[in-house]
Amino acid sequence: MVAEKRFFSAKMVTKTVDLRSDTVTKPTESMRAAMASADVDDDVLTYDPTALRLETEMAKITGKEAALFVPSGTMGNLISVLVHCDVRGSEVILGNNSHIHIYENGGISTIGGVHPRTVKNNPDGTMDIDLIEAAIRDPRGELVYPTTRLICLENSHANCGGRCLSVEYTDRVGEIAKKHGLKLHIDGARIFNAAVALDVPVHRLVQAADSVSVCLSKGLGAPVGSVIVGSKSFINKARRLRKTLGGGMRQVGILCAAALVALQETVEKLEVDHKKAKMFAEGLNKIKGLRVDVNTVETNIVYFDIVEGSKIKAESLCKTLEEHGVLLMSEGSSRIRIVLHHQISASDVQYTLSCFQQALTGVKEENGI
Amino acid sequence: MVAEKRFFSAKMVTKTVDLRSDTVTKPTESMRAAMASADVDDDVLTYDPTALRLETEMAKITGKEAALFVPSGTMGNLISVLVHCDVRGSEVILGNNSHIHIYENGGISTIGGVHPRTVKNNPDGTMDIDLIEAAIRDPRGELVYPTTRLICLENSHANCGGRCLSVEYTDRVGEIAKKHGLKLHIDGARIFNAAVALDVPVHRLVQAADSVSVCLSKGLGAPVGSVIVGSKSFINKARRLRKTLGGGMRQVGILCAAALVALQETVEKLEVDHKKAKMFAEGLNKIKGLRVDVNTVETNIVYFDIVEGSKIKAESLCKTLEEHGVLLMSEGSSRIRIVLHHQISASDVQYTLSCFQQALTGVKEENGI
Amino acid sequence: MVAEKRFFSAKMVTKTVDLRSDTVTKPTESMRAAMASADVDDDVLTYDPTALRLETEMAKITGKEAALFVPSGTMGNLISVLVHCDVRGSEVILGNNSHIHIYENGGISTIGGVHPRTVKNNPDGTMDIDLIEAAIRDPRGELVYPTTRLICLENSHANCGGRCLSVEYTDRVGEIAKKHGLKLHIDGARIFNAAVALDVPVHRLVQAADSVSVCLSKGLGAPVGSVIVGSKSFINKARRLRKTLGGGMRQVGILCAAALVALQETVEKLEVDHKKAKMFAEGLNKIKGLRVDVNTVETNIVYFDIVEGSKIKAESLCKTLEEHGVLLMSEGSSRIRIVLHHQISASDVQYTLSCFQQALTGVKEENGI
Amino acid sequence: MVAEKRFFSAKMVTKTVDLRSDTVTKPTESMRAAMASADVDDDVLTYDPTALRLETEMAKITGKEAALFVPSGTMGNLISVLVHCDVRGSEVILGNNSHIHIYENGGISTIGGVHPRTVKNNPDGTMDIDLIEAAIRDPRGELVYPTTRLICLENSHANCGGRCLSVEYTDRVGEIAKKHGLKLHIDGARIFNAAVALDVPVHRLVQAADSVSVCLSKGLGAPVGSVIVGSKSFINKARRLRKTLGGGMRQVGILCAAALVALQETVEKLEVDHKKAKMFAEGLNKIKGLRVDVNTVETNIVYFDIVEGSKIKAESLCKTLEEHGVLLMSEGSSRIRIVLHHQISASDVQYTLSCFQQALTGVKEENGI
Repeated sequence: MVAEKRFFSAKMVTKTVDLRSDTVTKPTESMRAAMASADVDDDVLTYDPTALRLETEMAKITGKEAALFVPSGTMGNLISVLVHCDVRGSEVILGNNSHIHIYENGGISTIGGVHPRTVKNNPDGTMDIDLIEAAIRDPRGELVYPTTRLICLENSHANCGGRCLSVEYTDRVGEIAKKHGLKLHIDGARIFNAAVALDVPVHRLVQAADSVSVCLSKGLGAPVGSVIVGSKSFINKARRLRKTLGGGMRQVGILCAAALVALQETVEKLEVDHKKAKMFAEGLNKIKGLRVDVNTVETNIVYFDIVEGSKIKAESLCKTLEEHGVLLMSEGSSRIRIVLHHQISASDVQYTLSCFQQALTGVKEENGI
Repeated sequence: MVAEKRFFSAKMVTKTVDLRSDTVTKPTESMRAAMASADVDDDVLTYDPTALRLETEMAKITGKEAALFVPSGTMGNLISVLVHCDVRGSEVILGNNSHIHIYENGGISTIGGVHPRTVKNNPDGTMDIDLIEAAIRDPRGELVYPTTRLICLENSHANCGGRCLSVEYTDRVGEIAKKHGLKLHIDGARIFNAAVALDVPVHRLVQAADSVSVCLSKGLGAPVGSVIVGSKSFINKARRLRKTLGGGMRQVGILCAAALVALQETVEKLEVDHKKAKMFAEGLNKIKGLRVDVNTVETNIVYFDIVEGSKIKAESLCKTLEEHGVLLMSEGSSRIRIVLHHQISASDVQYTLSCFQQALTGVKEENGI
Repeated sequence: MVAEKRFFSAKMVTKTVDLRSDTVTKPTESMRAAMASADVDDDVLTYDPTALRLETEMAKITGKEAALFVPSGTMGNLISVLVHCDVRGSEVILGNNSHIHIYENGGISTIGGVHPRTVKNNPDGTMDIDLIEAAIRDPRGELVYPTTRLICLENSHANCGGRCLSVEYTDRVGEIAKKHGLKLHIDGARIFNAAVALDVPVHRLVQAADSVSVCLSKGLGAPVGSVIVGSKSFINKARRLRKTLGGGMRQVGILCAAALVALQETVEKLEVDHKKAKMFAEGLNKIKGLRVDVNTVETNIVYFDIVEGSKIKAESLCKTLEEHGVLLMSEGSSRIRIVLHHQISASDVQYTLSCFQQALTGVKEENGI
Repeated sequence: MVAEKRFFSAKMVTKTVDLRSDTVTKPTESMRAAMASADVDDDVLTYDPTALRLETEMAKITGKEAALFVPSGTMGNLISVLVHCDVRGSEVILGNNSHIHIYENGGISTIGGVHPRTVKNNPDGTMDIDLIEAAIRDPRGELVYPTTRLICLENSHANCGGRCLSVEYTDRVGEIAKKHGLKLHIDGARIFNAAVALDVPVHRLVQAADSVSVCLSKGLGAPVGSVIVGSKSFINKARRLRKTLGGGMRQVGILCAAALVALQETVEKLEVDHKKAKMFAEGLNKIKGLRVDVNTVETNIVYFDIVEGSKIKAESLCKTLEEHGVLLMSEGSSRIRIVLHHQISASDVQYTLSCFQQALTGVKEENGI
């Protein structure tokens, strides 16, 4: 088939199926239209009306008093941790596999001077409740201990394959936090994915949290930005810190307008993404040489492994797929990650599976698997 | 006149003449169109083509190797200072009246741990060269001294009334920096205003600098963002620090598209802004009770004073003007600042002068508008 | 017996057997004499001759170029980590059970902005070599990763019961560090205990390290201070940072004089401490209700447990012993730590065992066990 | 004369008259005896009785609730500033010529993340009250301003020639602080000198201060250490931060014993030091080529200048004096500082004047020594 030939010849390929992350989506026509006509003002000096609308909407969705638009999820987490840990000598408890600990440049320490205490993440993204509690510093030992001030959860948990923390689990961690006078922050970059997968409203899922950072430019498909939510007092401090970090932007309503469209249009598509992820995982499992635990695919992320003993390395397999226009990310020598989003169609999934099939077996299935 | 009645009745007024800052401009139709059709990609993962175009263009304009888009001028300055002062124990020499020292939350210290050493700003925005040199720490005293690593200039200088540093002055400070092995950063939030006023190309004006931060959302009128420029090595470090601070954004080409339009359309209008500022200053001087040194009005900023002995306070005068739809910022009890920009027309200037006239004398000039 | 009555009546007891730490030793008569006659000068302005002698001696013992006296082991570790990680954005790999991570107020982050990455400590104080290597950040990921700059070991390892890292293990970690361009710091608060237990010279044991902090006021019995050792360049930077932290002291030769005596007199007594620790552990094991793995007692620290199912809590057991003049530290509900030092005699050990026997069984053995 | 020959021949000279600082004193015999017999314990684990005695005594002398021994004046100031500014985003107002700003490595920023705002020091060590008040940030501007939390004074003021701040001045600054909800810290490294010169009890002089750091190893002559004083709550936080910085020391009573002797023996000698300083200044003024304003010599520090037009440079003059066994510190090309202390005799002063006389005129006064 012509189409296939096009992809199978590296020189003719143009990038097509981008599965590296759900951050790669392009703004839709309706988003572009919204940006072009957005009512804006200086969000630093006064309040941009569109930013205000988005913040009001996000506060409502998450059931919190107030919200603040920030340029990225990293800034959302950084501000949240630093506001809760605004006194020198603070410690935060967080997962050893969490995005904050692994992928955010260590900013909470290198920029914020907050000491991280990690607890082992289970494969499902949780940390054992008793390990969390054991990690809380005894206030009587304050002469040699930093002061524990915050617990961070991540839902869904990116490095744990997009798995979801349940309402029950989150509530229990919230109780532990309260009991010890700590705050609870949820890195909810993909909290909408978790809410959809668990079939629970976002506000219920984050009810126990003092703050949540929610990404608009991942699965939701907005071009730029995250929102953090919490109490009015939290958001007031966050606004100031946003300015300190340089995250205060002027006519930012442009970006917020697109995010408002995303909230209306894309949330309902997340369930479809999850189904495609499941479909993708099931398809992969049929390919000799690849393995994935389908039960662990709860949202839009699929981690899969090259079976032990294979001579193929993840990085070279990714390169082969790249020649076919499929972009992926390898992790280590035998693991690959793909992330579904609303701009990946069912046929993109089939096409990708077909490429894997051919790359691993040298045989292209006639019927696209 | 109808129009006047509208403005003179507080209840009917809608905000009209916003002179608080040049950050309040709204995106033009051509900017909106450019944003709606911008070619974008994930600027964090790979490179957004429009962001790349803007960065290439800004590097060319400023005569530097590389450039980086950042969400704000505050982040541009913060990153620049922190990259030059990346080793613990650094000190920066900067003006005691500089934007970095006064209006950026002390972020270089509170976030970056950099120790500021201030030198007195003269009314024209310069610092005496010999005072700068005297402030540089003797490396032999390193046991008790922090290490001076950076000098910061600001051009044009906001708090000094938008006055410009000349090429000669900047070059001399650059020589001092080189002589002592220091870097030179220019807070060029309004460097285009300075270049236009001095009638010199931007690249020549910042030739001596190792880095410059340039604001796109002030006089240039883009909705959001600044760009920092410098060597490739500087920009590589800056890119990483931008990520740490949370300033890395995804499909940011949206914003860069508007900035590219601003570079094409608005730069040439700056000269007009400066003329309107001059006109405004001259008009103010004719109003009894207000005083401004017209010779110091070099760009688009006008600071003026309520004459000594007056019973009128700056804050209440601003409030009166606000009732007429004119937005201003007071500084202390007797000083007011206005900033011109491309969305303030000559008749807005006349209208504002007329409002001042009436507010101070109770008499409305017939031909005031 | 009179002696026993004295101890068994709380009111009459005076503190006698202090097993809480080896930091509680009192200076000996020879130390006091040395302090009284020490030749001193201003160690900040120039160089105190006695401080210089101690530093020269410690550099020789550890086989490093240079040394620096510091007020405490905590400052020794803090300075060492901060000097190796002097560039913003640094990460250190260290044991999740290490003294630096658990007992030093999180100072490397809260004061130094260094991001800690912990690796699980095995019961013997090691971290698996492959886990260390896996924790090193891939420099290609520098956009989202902090930069790994340092690995820290602890020898002997306090929280792991004073167990020793072998020369072979240390050398292997040193190779890993070199391979990746990292530095290796050893928290050698009790490096003399380790060297004695392993029967290897200190300089050989720390050969692979770029820096070592050595405590003089733990087992060695000096009243105050630690020494850090490393290259001349490292020590020059350390001297400056010591001044920044406020650790530069004036006529500090007073304290160094005592430390020089400790090096001469106490090192040879460490072996005796280790034998007493072994004797103590063996005695404990004979007491019903207590358990210790004697094989893990390698130096002067003994951790032991109240057997499962017992109703006795560690804290209350410690309180009971305190009434008998024996000072201990409990850890959690069922674990107790004792630390031997040169001012604990064999009969103190016997007396303490006898107290435990009585506290747990209500029966005092006639022959003191 | 033999003695002179000895000094006038560089090779035969041994260091004799050390006027570089009052930190160079050697412990007296009574201090050495006190150290040799000091009752000590682990000041980190529990409380060293001698440290406790010193802290109690210092709290009493300064009229504060509590006190804490620290290794140095630098740590005393660092801890004090950081405790008062324990929330991220704090700013301190202090003199542009203060010891904290100039000679402490910028630690409050580089270690503590506190943003310094300097106010010009007058020649007498004061800062104009209205300039202090103007430097306090308007809390309404908190979006762009750091939060002012502390004012620092220095009494006596080292860089301003050891001049003293009066009770009245200090009280007025204290009122300003209170009015704005700020704390007041006094760097009282030489507060005893100030109290003696002003003939006022220390506790009255620091009555308005929330904290004071007092140096024991300057004029008081103790070998090592400073004490900070303040409320119980302040000292509790200070104790923890001291541990974080590594300033917690074990059997530190050794050093405190010497300090207790200093409090008893040396305070009364400060007046004599001040007279010798006056004598020295008057003598210098008689030497052609040197000039000092005798009226500004209020305590034990004398700054004097080589008269304008002289070819002699301060550094080379210091070197010449060094050949005669007189140690001095030059500041810039024409200024020299000397500091008197209890181990400088009246004949040392005469001898030094004689050396200056000879160095500058080539003529040795017969009765110079």
